[in-house]
Amino acid sequence: MNGPACPIPLARYPVITLGHGGGGRLTAELIDRLFGAAFGNRLLDQRHDATVVPVPAGPLAVSTDSFVVSPLSFPGGSIGSLAVFGTANDLAMGGARPLYLTVAFILEEGLPIETLWREVLVMQKAAAEVGASIVAGDTKVVERGKGDGLYLNTTGLGAVVGSSPVGPRQVRPGDVLLVSGDLGRHGMAVMAAREGLALAHPIESDCGSLVAAVLALLEAGLEVHCLRDLTRGGLATALNEVAAVSGTSALVEETKLAVEDRVASACEIFGLDPLYVANEGRFAAWVRPEDADRALTILRRFPITADAVQAGVVLPAQGPPTVTLQSRYGTTRVLDLLAGEQLPRIC
Amino acid sequence: MNGPACPIPLARYPVITLGHGGGGRLTAELIDRLFGAAFGNRLLDQRHDATVVPVPAGPLAVSTDSFVVSPLSFPGGSIGSLAVFGTANDLAMGGARPLYLTVAFILEEGLPIETLWREVLVMQKAAAEVGASIVAGDTKVVERGKGDGLYLNTTGLGAVVGSSPVGPRQVRPGDVLLVSGDLGRHGMAVMAAREGLALAHPIESDCGSLVAAVLALLEAGLEVHCLRDLTRGGLATALNEVAAVSGTSALVEETKLAVEDRVASACEIFGLDPLYVANEGRFAAWVRPEDADRALTILRRFPITADAVQAGVVLPAQGPPTVTLQSRYGTTRVLDLLAGEQLPRIC
Repeated sequence: MNGPACPIPLARYPVITLGHGGGGRLTAELIDRLFGAAFGNRLLDQRHDATVVPVPAGPLAVSTDSFVVSPLSFPGGSIGSLAVFGTANDLAMGGARPLYLTVAFILEEGLPIETLWREVLVMQKAAAEVGASIVAGDTKVVERGKGDGLYLNTTGLGAVVGSSPVGPRQVRPGDVLLVSGDLGRHGMAVMAAREGLALAHPIESDCGSLVAAVLALLEAGLEVHCLRDLTRGGLATALNEVAAVSGTSALVEETKLAVEDRVASACEIFGLDPLYVANEGRFAAWVRPEDADRALTILRRFPITADAVQAGVVLPAQGPPTVTLQSRYGTTRVLDLLAGEQLPRIC
Repeated sequence: MNGPACPIPLARYPVITLGHGGGGRLTAELIDRLFGAAFGNRLLDQRHDATVVPVPAGPLAVSTDSFVVSPLSFPGGSIGSLAVFGTANDLAMGGARPLYLTVAFILEEGLPIETLWREVLVMQKAAAEVGASIVAGDTKVVERGKGDGLYLNTTGLGAVVGSSPVGPRQVRPGDVLLVSGDLGRHGMAVMAAREGLALAHPIESDCGSLVAAVLALLEAGLEVHCLRDLTRGGLATALNEVAAVSGTSALVEETKLAVEDRVASACEIFGLDPLYVANEGRFAAWVRPEDADRALTILRRFPITADAVQAGVVLPAQGPPTVTLQSRYGTTRVLDLLAGEQLPRIC
C-alpha cells in the first residue's frame, strides 16, 4: 500500500478494541486522527451531531447502501471503493451529480487498524473521483464474532441534472436498451477471491465510477428514460425490476452481451449464469431509438463504458412483463427473477 | 405486539435466509411486501436506485448513525425507535427540522421475520412522530455468526430552522448550560436488560424524540448557541467535546443534575458514573443568560423535557478547556474524557 502512514501508532494500537466504540478518548482519537486525516474538510470540521451543508436549488437524489462484502479486498477493488462508487453510481442512476456522502462504520473488535486506514484512504480517493465530499460519519464497534471485520454504510445526496425524471416509470415500448460493458466481473472476482480459485489471470472486478459517463449523457441533452446499475442480481434482475415497474417487456440479444472468457469459465465452475452475476461498474440505459447512436458515441469516450452496446428493445407487455433473451441460435428463453441468493455478500 | 399482521406468511418463511439478501425474488418480496407495507409513500414508490426528493431553499442538515444495540429490545425502546429518534435528534441538534430518512438493514441469517416486522412498524411510527418520510432503503443479509440479529443505519436530512448556526463553535464564555432532564436511563436500561438484572421496577430508557421541544426553542427566536444530545459517553463526554471545539471551560452543579434512584443503584452495581452513561432523549443547550428562563419555560411544556434545568455556565478556558463538577458539598472535580468503553453496544 502506498500512501500516507497511519496517523495512529500501530505498535501501540494494532487493532480495534471495544473501547474505540465507547465514545471516550479512544473514539475521539479514531475520529480526530484517523478519519480526520483522511476525510477532513471544511464541512466535516463543524464537528457537530449534524452537519449543515449548502445545496443548490432544485430536487435532490438520495440513496443509501450498506456493504458487507467478503473478503474485504478482491482484485479490482475493496469494500471502501465499492461503498463510495456504489452509492455514487446509484445517484448517477437517479440522474444526479453526487454532492455529499455520509459514511458509517461497524467495526469488529480485532480488526487491524491498518486495514481500516487502508479503506479510509481508498474511500477518500474514490469520493474525490466522484466529486463528493464526505460530510458526516459514525463509528460503532461490535464484539469479536458479531461482525466480519468491517461493514460500511454510505448514503449519498446528489443534485438532479436536467429536468426530466429518470427512472423505471419513464420506460416505454420502443425504447432502446443500452448495456455499458461486459458482464459478471465483480461477482466472479469476489467469488474467486473468497473461494481461493487458482486462476492464471485473476478476474478483476469492474468496480468503478459511472458518474462521469452518466453526467456526459445527461448533459448532452439526450432524452434518457431510465438508468439502472447492474449490481446484485446482475443484468437479468435489473431488467426484470424495470419491466415490472414500467409494465413493459424487454427483448435482449445474447450476441450483443459480452462476458470475458475467464468470467464465463468461473461461472461454469460455480454453476452460475453470468447474466445474474453482480457488476459494480456497469449499467443499462433506456433511451429513444433516435438517441441511441449518439448515446453510444458519448459512452464510448469513457474507459469504463468504452464497450457500450445496443443490446435490446422494450416491447409492450403481452400479459405479465417479461424479459426474454434471444440466443445466438435464434431461440429464446425467459430471464426470470431467481428465487434466492446466487452469490451472498458480494457487496 | 398490537398492530397489523406481518404481510409475509410466517409459517412458510419464519426467518431471514441468505436468499433474502441475494437480490432475487425473496429480496423483492421482502422489499415489496414487508418494507413496502410499513414504509410505503409516494417518494419511495419511485422504486429506483436513488430517490428524487423536493427540498426547501436553504441549507440542509445531514446526520448518519449505525445502530448495534444489544439486546434489540429493552424497557422503553428498541433498535428501531433508537435508530429513528437518534438520527432525528441529531438533526434537531443541528438546528434542523427532520425531512427525510434513509434506512439500511444488515440482517443476520436466522433473524425471525416477526422481529423484523416489529421493528419496521416501530420505525414507521417513530418517523411519523418526528415528521420525516423514509425515502430510501437497503437490505443486506450476513451468515449466521457474522452479525447479531439486526444492525441498522439511519441517515437523515433536515431543513435548517433560523438563520444563526447552532453548534459547538458558537459557544462562548457566559453562556448558560441547560440540561433537559434526568440522566443515565438509556444506558442502564440496556445494561439491566442485557445482564438480566432483577429490578422491582425496571429502568425505562428515555429513548424519544426531542424534535418538537427543540423546534419550539428555535422557533421562539431565542439565540441558541449550541445543542448536543447526551448519547454515547453521556453528559460528561458531550460537555468535554463541546469544550474542546469551542475552546471554553464549563462549570456544572451536581445538585442540579437529576438521576433516578434506581438508575443510581444500577450504576453502583456496575461501577459506572451516571454522568458518563448514555441517554437517548436528553440534551444540553447553550444559551445567552438573558434567554435561559424563557428557554426553560418553553422546554417544560414538553413531557420529554419537562424537567429541564439550568445546570451550569461556560467560562473562559484557563489553559486547556476543562469541564468541572461542583459537588453538593462545594468541592470540585474535573470531568475528564474516559479512555475506552464504559458500555459497549448501547446504541
